[in-house]
Amino acid sequence: MKVIENGGLTTPQGFEAAAVACGIKASGNKDLSLVYSPSPAAVSAAFTANQVAAAPVVVSKANLGTTAQAIILNSGNANAVTGAAGIDDARAMVALTAARLGLAPGQVLVASTGIIGHPLPMAPVRDGIAALEPAAGPAADLAFAEGIMTTDAFPKHLAVEVELSGGPVAIGGSAKGAGMIAPDLAPHATMIAIVTTDAPLGQQDLDGFMAAAIAGSFNVITVDGDTSTNDCLFALANGRAGEFGLSAGDRRALREAFNYVCLRLAKMIVRDGEGATRLIEYTVTGAQTPGDAVTVAKTVADSLLVKTAFFGRDPNWGRILAAIGRSGVSIDPDRLEVDIGGAAVVRSGLAVETPGPRLALAMESEEIQVRIGLNLGAAQATVYGSDLSYDYVKLNAEYTT
Amino acid sequence: MKVIENGGLTTPQGFEAAAVACGIKASGNKDLSLVYSPSPAAVSAAFTANQVAAAPVVVSKANLGTTAQAIILNSGNANAVTGAAGIDDARAMVALTAARLGLAPGQVLVASTGIIGHPLPMAPVRDGIAALEPAAGPAADLAFAEGIMTTDAFPKHLAVEVELSGGPVAIGGSAKGAGMIAPDLAPHATMIAIVTTDAPLGQQDLDGFMAAAIAGSFNVITVDGDTSTNDCLFALANGRAGEFGLSAGDRRALREAFNYVCLRLAKMIVRDGEGATRLIEYTVTGAQTPGDAVTVAKTVADSLLVKTAFFGRDPNWGRILAAIGRSGVSIDPDRLEVDIGGAAVVRSGLAVETPGPRLALAMESEEIQVRIGLNLGAAQATVYGSDLSYDYVKLNAEYTT
Repeated sequence: MKVIENGGLTTPQGFEAAAVACGIKASGNKDLSLVYSPSPAAVSAAFTANQVAAAPVVVSKANLGTTAQAIILNSGNANAVTGAAGIDDARAMVALTAARLGLAPGQVLVASTGIIGHPLPMAPVRDGIAALEPAAGPAADLAFAEGIMTTDAFPKHLAVEVELSGGPVAIGGSAKGAGMIAPDLAPHATMIAIVTTDAPLGQQDLDGFMAAAIAGSFNVITVDGDTSTNDCLFALANGRAGEFGLSAGDRRALREAFNYVCLRLAKMIVRDGEGATRLIEYTVTGAQTPGDAVTVAKTVADSLLVKTAFFGRDPNWGRILAAIGRSGVSIDPDRLEVDIGGAAVVRSGLAVETPGPRLALAMESEEIQVRIGLNLGAAQATVYGSDLSYDYVKLNAEYTT
Repeated sequence: MKVIENGGLTTPQGFEAAAVACGIKASGNKDLSLVYSPSPAAVSAAFTANQVAAAPVVVSKANLGTTAQAIILNSGNANAVTGAAGIDDARAMVALTAARLGLAPGQVLVASTGIIGHPLPMAPVRDGIAALEPAAGPAADLAFAEGIMTTDAFPKHLAVEVELSGGPVAIGGSAKGAGMIAPDLAPHATMIAIVTTDAPLGQQDLDGFMAAAIAGSFNVITVDGDTSTNDCLFALANGRAGEFGLSAGDRRALREAFNYVCLRLAKMIVRDGEGATRLIEYTVTGAQTPGDAVTVAKTVADSLLVKTAFFGRDPNWGRILAAIGRSGVSIDPDRLEVDIGGAAVVRSGLAVETPGPRLALAMESEEIQVRIGLNLGAAQATVYGSDLSYDYVKLNAEYTT
């Protein structure tokens, strides 16, 4: 597998992308993005489990078939809690995009991200869709990624190439964060992520690869514990790399590649979490079930006291233990183990002497590994979280989002 | 019922209190408090549900009988995650206090609050217990409340007097916060709270009054969602107001008084929540069960996006709706109602026109009422939360607690 860092949605053959600044955002930044496959592509989708689901989520769910050719996305306005008018607006985005590209409306999906509860300004959206000029290449990939940003500090995209028995295929990905991030995508995220591939995959295969990749990536990240009304993930497979069967080895290679692309995008979202200065990787081992491992890891990752300790560069394992103890998962306090940055800090539920300089060094790393051993079973899980900084408060107290 | 704002644990007859600075806190502030009843008092206790329970929690649970005469409490060190040595230290606090007061060890309970995972410095504790001089009066009440403070900005105490058929009785209370506050006291708080009364109540009656009072106070407050390893609540009833039977009216009056004292203390904890500038009262109405109402209210109260919005004085109901939708409680988005400061902002799941000045005024109040209507049933609950400020981050990132 070869990683193409400046790759994106149009690295796989037969995909095009575009973005414009249509005027939804007062900043004048890009706010309307399109990805387009001139040939029908198998589609896999996952949507937020939040019961207050945005209009584009409702419309895309209803419109989802076995294939899709275009996804239209706006940032700056979530089109959420907008009632029947919001549903009409989301449908109009689909219809306008279909007309622009000469597609049946059933081939177009829609997503939105931004402020909740304000009508989508349709005049700029209409003009924006008319102005979209899809193309392939790094400039289009970058523009797409910029067009879906809200409080994101940087655009998020990459691609990989995988050599299969029938020839090379590519997988591209693009995503946005950066707040209201605790995706719970159901089969499960105002995370938005798009994955494209030219591998010869039908919907069932694509669903399988994406379900596995989501479970180990988007569904195990948290910036603020706030699952959004608008989270959407779409994957498109157009088969343009050629028609060939997949060997068991090909499937392993594809699984690894989908997992890699989704995990990289998910980690970019956490790294760019609102105000975040650290990515912390919490691995819980020795749990009785994988679900228990995820629950313990998420409880620790979302603890305000743990998050502020990491912002303070304080390896405060006492706060970690307190969070483990309130997670609701049955534990044995006397068996607990905690490692920070590979250094043992707790064994058998008690502090062990750990060289202070080693911990201080671990705290300086932009990515910090925390291992929590429960010593009760064989299950494990990893959750990716961020710290909590002054800038988080600034971003969310000073601006309405 | 008459409220005595500067009252406290020794307002009821027959109770004494004391506090000293024994040297646990580097600041030199008071860090060792005692409440003492020269005559045996019926006792009711509730402890944290956190599975990583501190040594004093373990020791007090084991020592709890039908009566108690003294509670010894230290701040500055939680004596949590301190293993067998910690248990020995907590037992030594009990034994030293019993010896100091000439009591059987079974009459003494113990509580601690402060940093987790550090051995309790027993030499200062020993000297401190020897130096305690219990007395009654406002000075003793204030000293007691100061001696249990950690990151608290102000001491927390009050008392009430209730006229019963057999004569007047008093109830006194004292508590501390201010972080790791999401009490889950089991029958259920590093909240520590002590309640005293001279009313003629046995353990069973006291347990009943306290269980009801806890359910509507300490168990429905949250500062940070982090349930502590050390939460403890103790209530003592020494009957010194006189021996008389309780009429149904007396029981109603006592219930109201216990509820009032516990709710006032609980709200003081939230008002003094680390970095808090606002107390927000979330009342969920129209739930199918009281448990559902509490879950929805706590999910909203603990949402970082909602908390930072209130710090920013932003009546951001979109964030409130997003939190309701991810609470795990089954809702109908189209039936949702939200009022902020008594002004309707959401009806039938959609924004209603609300005068901006009215909302702006509501945001300036130090106590803000939010009502969330689910319109699904008849159950309701109120949860008390705080906002999230720069000072919260500062307190918890710059200091190890």
